[in-house]
Amino acid sequence: MKGKLITFEGTDGAGKTTQINLLKEYLTEKGFDVVLTREPGGTTISEKIREILLDKNNTEMKDKTEVLLYAAARAQHVLEKIIPALNEGKIVISDRFFDSNIAYQGFGRGIGEETVFEINKFALCGIMPDLTFFLDASPKTGLKRKINEKNHTLDRMEKESETFHERVYEGFCTLCDKYPERIKRIDAIDDIESIHKKIIQQTEKIL
Amino acid sequence: MKGKLITFEGTDGAGKTTQINLLKEYLTEKGFDVVLTREPGGTTISEKIREILLDKNNTEMKDKTEVLLYAAARAQHVLEKIIPALNEGKIVISDRFFDSNIAYQGFGRGIGEETVFEINKFALCGIMPDLTFFLDASPKTGLKRKINEKNHTLDRMEKESETFHERVYEGFCTLCDKYPERIKRIDAIDDIESIHKKIIQQTEKIL
Repeated sequence: MKGKLITFEGTDGAGKTTQINLLKEYLTEKGFDVVLTREPGGTTISEKIREILLDKNNTEMKDKTEVLLYAAARAQHVLEKIIPALNEGKIVISDRFFDSNIAYQGFGRGIGEETVFEINKFALCGIMPDLTFFLDASPKTGLKRKINEKNHTLDRMEKESETFHERVYEGFCTLCDKYPERIKRIDAIDDIESIHKKIIQQTEKIL
Repeated sequence: MKGKLITFEGTDGAGKTTQINLLKEYLTEKGFDVVLTREPGGTTISEKIREILLDKNNTEMKDKTEVLLYAAARAQHVLEKIIPALNEGKIVISDRFFDSNIAYQGFGRGIGEETVFEINKFALCGIMPDLTFFLDASPKTGLKRKINEKNHTLDRMEKESETFHERVYEGFCTLCDKYPERIKRIDAIDDIESIHKKIIQQTEKIL
């Protein structure tokens, strides 16, 4: 595949959206064809699955259901949108990808890294991000930002307990340590421009 | 677990609903507490997943998405409804269960029996039907019945090609041969009363 897949991960409110938009702007100015997308979602069917996943009324949802729904949304996203874009040589930037599944369900829900990874292997259809940014903000800082956002209603995942979000954070840290080549850990406390510069530096290496 | 799980399988239009209702009536009269349910569905969240799966507008759905969505609906169904009912000593009768997933996606879509089974193992949480009835009607006969039903609009799966339904049928036959102890193959061409008698005969053996 000629294109590149860059994913952004982090606890809620770490500032992913801002950085994704800045990176898109930068790459577009350099002449690249950039596709912005997000998970869960990115296609019509995946967005319908997203609605079920994040609906705060779905309080009965079981952890295994959650794992399989995220994987289903991902399979559709990968096959319908990401692989075709990569084949056309585009740069795909995704707001969250399978690492989130491992951090939130594998670690946060306690289903286990290996089990969640096995199911994701089926959904990933052989693709892997070329580069992943983990925007490192403590779960407390991140959630505080979300709560302060105007008109933001917390979704089903955001409403989870503090200890859940702590486990998710630990999960991300474990993944950073395990895959240092692919996942770049970036301190999200820095100012927007400094973070953007670090992201550009790493991105340039894979172009 | 004190209860029993009985599942009904077959190509569309094989007459499952009629036989399920007759069996329920029979068991209720004998004093059993019977829970009727169906797949995909059976719980609020699983029914929402069902809507996505069967919506005939979702023509872009990929085979892997389908497998994972069926498994997600099943995980929720098993954990929220089936296991609690079995623990209370009830007889759960499900209109379709995981064998359908293997026949439709494993064989029909060509994803493979083993792969679909592996994902289902995660969703099944260790349970297995005590008894499964395969109502054996050729796909042509079954679909003709469905089409002749008043006001019946064919869903996304029913609208699939004839060769797809042939492969599904072959899949069910393979499963019948492989698990003769659990899956009872019953000729769906017989009259309703004869079929019901055969079903009762087999059911009595597991009670």
